[in-house]
Amino acid sequence: MSTVKVKCPGTVANLVCGFDILGLALHEPADIMEVKLLDEPRVIIHNRDAYNLPTEPEKNVAGVVFLSVMERIGGHTGFEVTIEKHIKPGSGIGSSAASAAGAAVAANHLLGNIFTSDEVVQFAMNGEKLASGVKHADNIAPCILGGISLIRSIHPLDIVSIPSPDLYVTVIHPQIEVRTSDARQILKQQVLLKDAIRQWGNIAGLVTGFMKNDYDLIGRSLEDVIIEPVRSILIPGFDEVKRKCKEAGALGGGISGSGPSIFMLSKDDSTAKAVESVMQEVYNKIGIDYHTYVTMINKKGVEIVAGY
Amino acid sequence: MSTVKVKCPGTVANLVCGFDILGLALHEPADIMEVKLLDEPRVIIHNRDAYNLPTEPEKNVAGVVFLSVMERIGGHTGFEVTIEKHIKPGSGIGSSAASAAGAAVAANHLLGNIFTSDEVVQFAMNGEKLASGVKHADNIAPCILGGISLIRSIHPLDIVSIPSPDLYVTVIHPQIEVRTSDARQILKQQVLLKDAIRQWGNIAGLVTGFMKNDYDLIGRSLEDVIIEPVRSILIPGFDEVKRKCKEAGALGGGISGSGPSIFMLSKDDSTAKAVESVMQEVYNKIGIDYHTYVTMINKKGVEIVAGY
Repeated sequence: MSTVKVKCPGTVANLVCGFDILGLALHEPADIMEVKLLDEPRVIIHNRDAYNLPTEPEKNVAGVVFLSVMERIGGHTGFEVTIEKHIKPGSGIGSSAASAAGAAVAANHLLGNIFTSDEVVQFAMNGEKLASGVKHADNIAPCILGGISLIRSIHPLDIVSIPSPDLYVTVIHPQIEVRTSDARQILKQQVLLKDAIRQWGNIAGLVTGFMKNDYDLIGRSLEDVIIEPVRSILIPGFDEVKRKCKEAGALGGGISGSGPSIFMLSKDDSTAKAVESVMQEVYNKIGIDYHTYVTMINKKGVEIVAGY
Repeated sequence: MSTVKVKCPGTVANLVCGFDILGLALHEPADIMEVKLLDEPRVIIHNRDAYNLPTEPEKNVAGVVFLSVMERIGGHTGFEVTIEKHIKPGSGIGSSAASAAGAAVAANHLLGNIFTSDEVVQFAMNGEKLASGVKHADNIAPCILGGISLIRSIHPLDIVSIPSPDLYVTVIHPQIEVRTSDARQILKQQVLLKDAIRQWGNIAGLVTGFMKNDYDLIGRSLEDVIIEPVRSILIPGFDEVKRKCKEAGALGGGISGSGPSIFMLSKDDSTAKAVESVMQEVYNKIGIDYHTYVTMINKKGVEIVAGY
């Protein structure tokens, strides 16, 4: 096989109380990447979308992942990739992670799966470093592995899959810009011990709720007393959206990644759709354009959809 | 039934990264309490041990729990209790919680189980308030419910039982005094966000490890970067004990409650015994007296051993 087509899902990182450690994969939106093995050590990038992303390998998220794979294996291998991006860059639902994860999974597949899944994650993290300056894995890991991923530690890398019940996810992407660097800078370096304790009670509750299929516990634990109160001021309408979504039956939710997208988890499809309507109403009133998704947790992660 | 005898187990609170939110119950040591229903509204306390604990109800941990139950139910009911304490006060393995939990469970049993388990915990928390000034539940909850308890929140009270594999627990109680108030005061009110993130990664890993029966994950997650580095200086030999216990095969462990006891979790009985020897060697060398226990997680909690 010399060519592979992969579907790379969007992801929600910073899962409310799970800042920097918990992320989940979505069914929609998802990018499509077609990757071809070359017999010369170069990377060729074609973008089939309107986002004007760079095509120089060193400046492209997928490009740097291919380069890091090539650096590892040496020899004359290269990659040609055609990217059809459906996850809007800057949306907060893992657009760069999808490119990075797709590149790493496709490269490994074409090379005969010579790398472990931890190594694949490591390659993909190089793409995240280019995109955000930080080698984080809370979008990369769920994008590659599917479901809900806990990044217990980055050094050394320790990724744990958290089983969960089927959960519906409603996402709204208000068409405003929140720069990841701004979202990082606004955070305080120190937090109150009492808030940290409350947060780790919630994260323990959330993980237990997922593993016990206890929807009420999931809902009670979806509380972030540290990051959300600071970052939500960058997203107009956030408090109103959250309150009304919970009134409409959502278990809870919060900022997706570093925003501006907001996500909500629901127990069933009809609630997830009611939550979508509530989100739309709020942004219609405020007068900010948006895009919404009603989807589910994607338990597969990056998927090989064709190979030839 | 007018008299009940209960066995009230010792407990380990502040389970490493689970400061203030996670505790577990032990098989040994355990107190025995015999509680008799009176038809007059008074509390009579007999101590059958050498600890010289107060017998005035308002100053006794079990006493204030009985008083709070009597205040709730009104009428002419009272309680007479005989306490055989085997869990040394000030050891850090839940001596006051055992008295408080035993009183609450026994009273509820004698009254025909009219209270929910959350209410029983609430009554017992009055005893903890007398003992430590704080209404915490991370000893009370596992003492009453058995196993491992997560206190997700105190206000409102939200207690979650965490399933776990069988685990052996080795405890050493060095005969030194660490006052709970000192152990509290020494803590910083603020912590670094990056440390808090590491801690909530560990707590999520620990809970997942318990629920997946993943001993390696439990071991990797038994790391406390916030409380232990500060409090362990109050316990001579702590670092050496911890290092040598892990070398001897313990999964990990730390300070029990606010000390001075140290506990270690192991996968099997022989490791737990090897860990005990290592602990004893360190304190023999330092020249501090100690008491050790090799026991298991107690999945039952306070147990009714007789009623007549």
